[in-house]
Amino acid sequence: MYSPIQKYLDEVHAGLFRIHGGSTESPNRVLASKDPNLVGLALTTSDGFTYTVGDADERFSMQSISKVFSYAIALQDNGFTFMDSKIDVEPSGSSYNDLSSESGSGRPKNALINIGAIAATAHIIPDSGESVFDKILRVYSACAGRQLDVDEDVYASDSAGSAHNRALTWFLSSWGIIEGDPIPAHDDYTRQCAVSVSARDLSVMAATLANLGVNPQTGERVFETKIVQRVLSVMLTCGMYDDSGDWVSSVGMPAKSGVGGGIISVQPGQLGMASFSPPLDEHGSSVRGLAAHRWMSRDLELHFVRTSNAGRSTIRSRESIDRLPSSTRRPDVAEEVLAEYGHLAQVIEVMGDLRFSGVEVVSRAVSDLHEDTLCVVLDLTRADEVADVSVRALSRLAQTLGSHTALGLVDPEERMAELMVPVQMELAVFASRNEALVWAEDRILEVYGNEDCFPEDETEHAVLIERVDETFRDDIEQYLVAESYEAGETIRNIGDPFDGIRFITSGTVHTLSPAETGREVITILTAGMSFGELSLNDHFNQPFTVRAETDVEIRLLPRDAIDRLTENSPRVAAHLWRAIAVEGYARLGQTLRGHS
Amino acid sequence: MYSPIQKYLDEVHAGLFRIHGGSTESPNRVLASKDPNLVGLALTTSDGFTYTVGDADERFSMQSISKVFSYAIALQDNGFTFMDSKIDVEPSGSSYNDLSSESGSGRPKNALINIGAIAATAHIIPDSGESVFDKILRVYSACAGRQLDVDEDVYASDSAGSAHNRALTWFLSSWGIIEGDPIPAHDDYTRQCAVSVSARDLSVMAATLANLGVNPQTGERVFETKIVQRVLSVMLTCGMYDDSGDWVSSVGMPAKSGVGGGIISVQPGQLGMASFSPPLDEHGSSVRGLAAHRWMSRDLELHFVRTSNAGRSTIRSRESIDRLPSSTRRPDVAEEVLAEYGHLAQVIEVMGDLRFSGVEVVSRAVSDLHEDTLCVVLDLTRADEVADVSVRALSRLAQTLGSHTALGLVDPEERMAELMVPVQMELAVFASRNEALVWAEDRILEVYGNEDCFPEDETEHAVLIERVDETFRDDIEQYLVAESYEAGETIRNIGDPFDGIRFITSGTVHTLSPAETGREVITILTAGMSFGELSLNDHFNQPFTVRAETDVEIRLLPRDAIDRLTENSPRVAAHLWRAIAVEGYARLGQTLRGHS
Repeated sequence: MYSPIQKYLDEVHAGLFRIHGGSTESPNRVLASKDPNLVGLALTTSDGFTYTVGDADERFSMQSISKVFSYAIALQDNGFTFMDSKIDVEPSGSSYNDLSSESGSGRPKNALINIGAIAATAHIIPDSGESVFDKILRVYSACAGRQLDVDEDVYASDSAGSAHNRALTWFLSSWGIIEGDPIPAHDDYTRQCAVSVSARDLSVMAATLANLGVNPQTGERVFETKIVQRVLSVMLTCGMYDDSGDWVSSVGMPAKSGVGGGIISVQPGQLGMASFSPPLDEHGSSVRGLAAHRWMSRDLELHFVRTSNAGRSTIRSRESIDRLPSSTRRPDVAEEVLAEYGHLAQVIEVMGDLRFSGVEVVSRAVSDLHEDTLCVVLDLTRADEVADVSVRALSRLAQTLGSHTALGLVDPEERMAELMVPVQMELAVFASRNEALVWAEDRILEVYGNEDCFPEDETEHAVLIERVDETFRDDIEQYLVAESYEAGETIRNIGDPFDGIRFITSGTVHTLSPAETGREVITILTAGMSFGELSLNDHFNQPFTVRAETDVEIRLLPRDAIDRLTENSPRVAAHLWRAIAVEGYARLGQTLRGHS
Repeated sequence: MYSPIQKYLDEVHAGLFRIHGGSTESPNRVLASKDPNLVGLALTTSDGFTYTVGDADERFSMQSISKVFSYAIALQDNGFTFMDSKIDVEPSGSSYNDLSSESGSGRPKNALINIGAIAATAHIIPDSGESVFDKILRVYSACAGRQLDVDEDVYASDSAGSAHNRALTWFLSSWGIIEGDPIPAHDDYTRQCAVSVSARDLSVMAATLANLGVNPQTGERVFETKIVQRVLSVMLTCGMYDDSGDWVSSVGMPAKSGVGGGIISVQPGQLGMASFSPPLDEHGSSVRGLAAHRWMSRDLELHFVRTSNAGRSTIRSRESIDRLPSSTRRPDVAEEVLAEYGHLAQVIEVMGDLRFSGVEVVSRAVSDLHEDTLCVVLDLTRADEVADVSVRALSRLAQTLGSHTALGLVDPEERMAELMVPVQMELAVFASRNEALVWAEDRILEVYGNEDCFPEDETEHAVLIERVDETFRDDIEQYLVAESYEAGETIRNIGDPFDGIRFITSGTVHTLSPAETGREVITILTAGMSFGELSLNDHFNQPFTVRAETDVEIRLLPRDAIDRLTENSPRVAAHLWRAIAVEGYARLGQTLRGHS
């Protein structure tokens, strides 16, 4: 089907042809040979999907867009302290080729004007066996996800016309910003400007920045997160030269233009966008490109003020476990204890991102709890993004709870696990809400219950049979057949025909959801409980897999015995079927309540 | 309990006392009388909760922090075009009291340096019956959520020492930026700087900006969203004077300091933070305040690059309705059609924010669907934030789907409804997933089924009784008692004791979850179906409310009839109980499958 995003980009592309003005008489003489009506747009998401429209595969030179990536390399090679002593991070408020340096030190105002960019390139440290430019091209290629190369015609033309940049380079040398022979830095800078890319390539490079340093298509980490944070910040305030303030106010996205006709913009965390259209305005930015990025920011609401408004966290639900029981079946006495004290275990489900605001909302909810609260289960199943800050905050939360109140976490995707190691948190972490509920119920029963609340390891009793009037129990039990299963053995498979009802006399059994939905444990069954009744459906077959978790002893009431009872001892059968029906509807009611 | 957020703020507060330096010999002479060891912090969330620590209720004068709010008032009074002709939005790169104006026009570089702030105040338009300063104080008070006043000592002192600002004011007059007598603008500006606030007040004012113009505690909309977007953008790039570039890189939050010792910072959409500590650095910003905001940005990961990374959307699940049936019970023939063609109806559940990236992910999933797809249900129940952009994109999605494929929306909080009106979308919108599933199933049955697939309006048949062997049906039916209910009437209430099983002969009945969980419709029952079996639980009482949606005709099999059958006609009873048990487990299996 036709994607609505594609449709939107097609509309933007078509709309750009209504915009005229600009010139191809740019400092980059090779641009003059380009058809001024070429227009290409590309958008790559932070999960690596690329949309393109128009001339998105047309090649052109990166020019000033290269400054962003070389600055990132220099920062990664030298660290912030060193690089900040060489290049400042302040907007210059002047044209891209101005001599905007600090009076006294000569430190360029920022790395996105020519003088700062030459200084940045001068500090790139090649790996052994490669030249500075080899490294530049290698890292650019890693950002683009393909091997890039230099347009030698552009390089020759730019190099011949680079008197101004040579002057800037010699100034940097005179101020000691570049030590030794400054000419290689000038040449590397001129060459990096001539790297040939398409709008498609640039959108992937921009998406690598959006993705905080990881190329979303290759998965390669090209830059550290803190480097990208710095680079995007400087792009936001200095990327659009003398119009930076207006750009921040009206577009609000880090961006960079080049006199090759390209522009990139970055929506952190979400997407990288790139445009190509040759006619340039008086600042050297593509006229149609500027319009495209402005439109997309407006229509897609990508301004930083709007987007950081996204992902507000909410507590989706907050329930005590007496209202939200686990699907583990418990002895009646345990159910009574849980009904009385279940309010002392609370389940809080978080929706949205688990960043500061998420943790703040959760903390507030937890702080409001009664001080007798025994445990708090935080269900992160529906939480979005889990940040480092959350782990620190949860660790602090666990501390403030004190020894009386335990904190449990439902984290099926194990997003917290990795992050927790460095802070050495001690937390109960569960793969499913049900397991956490079992844990919380167990804690309540340990404090307020007695030994009768816990399933016996072995029992001849069976809850289902105890629902039958005492008079009839022996008539049923005479039909029971003993069975044994080893730990890990599958007792019933999905689709198996109904062959009777099984009573557990020892061991633990799990009911599992179908493999394709992730093999969640639906029910945990222990001694005294029964299974097989779920096959009593329209098809009389097993809807879930049942697996022995430990060695298990079973007593089976076979299907033919039930049929014979129904035929020959209808009164016994009536009471048996009544018990089965009551058990079934009790569980249906519990399940509907738990999920509503 | 002790909140971990409070604990964190307490730690920050304690840590600030290890920071020394700065001076209280500021341009604001009243500050000199303040105890330099006063330190107050306050943080207000975008839902209006305030945390404070230390001297958060100590009063001090707003000074330059006032510039932010007066600029917002002037923008709201005059619009962007007019105000931008008077004041630019570019960083000045110089000190707060510099003469940073455009050569030629005299237009101040931005509204957050003194000359621009005086120009902004000059353009505030009072409502009838109030003075300019009345209006300033009224709007500031609306942002703070309480009536603010002026510290007359500060005003007298500042006014006496305002020669520099008088000079700036006369320059503005000479350039025509202020028309007529410029002195009232100077006086109003000096007076607004003397408005007395606490860190607590400022955190609420900052949270009003974070909340895009709505005071989170009073709910009053003080500024339009677009005004706040502009103001926050200018705060980000120009709020911290000559250090703005470094501030953006390292802190990445819109902020403003004042020589009264206060600093505010804003995390759009999330929170407003404020600090008070008198000693100032050479730029006139509170030394300990700067440290506090830097620490909070770092520890809480509030930098704009990090936060707009939040709220990434994901498709939580994507299922065809044959694997995710509605809880409506259908005739067997309908179930067969749904099993065969259910893959032509898809349910896509979105988690996270429904902004551009969310819509993009959804669009991509929809574009991948088979072209025979009859309907797509988008479940927004777990979606976070719904933006205007989403509505436009969904409208475009509905268009691209074409006439063959219908789009349904599950939107329990009706967040889309309001937004949809202006774009005139035609969409099926449902309050619960179950209703959408019913709609999708109906579409499949309309295309691929026949009339037998739809429940009859009236029927003497009952699914449950048809599960009983034909031989025994008459024995059961003789006990049935006719009942009638009117539309809207409650048939069974939660807690009612089991009084029998009811068969619907005409009309529709809803099973509702308890009121406190939001009265969701759990099951929709029509002619041929039964209810009351859910009371067959440990307490033999009704777990859910059952309500007549239309006029309903019922046949009741009373509890005592069932008891009598069990006693007197055990063979009949055995078959009846068997049917009830099978019905119960069939539904339990369906429910467990639907939710796993």
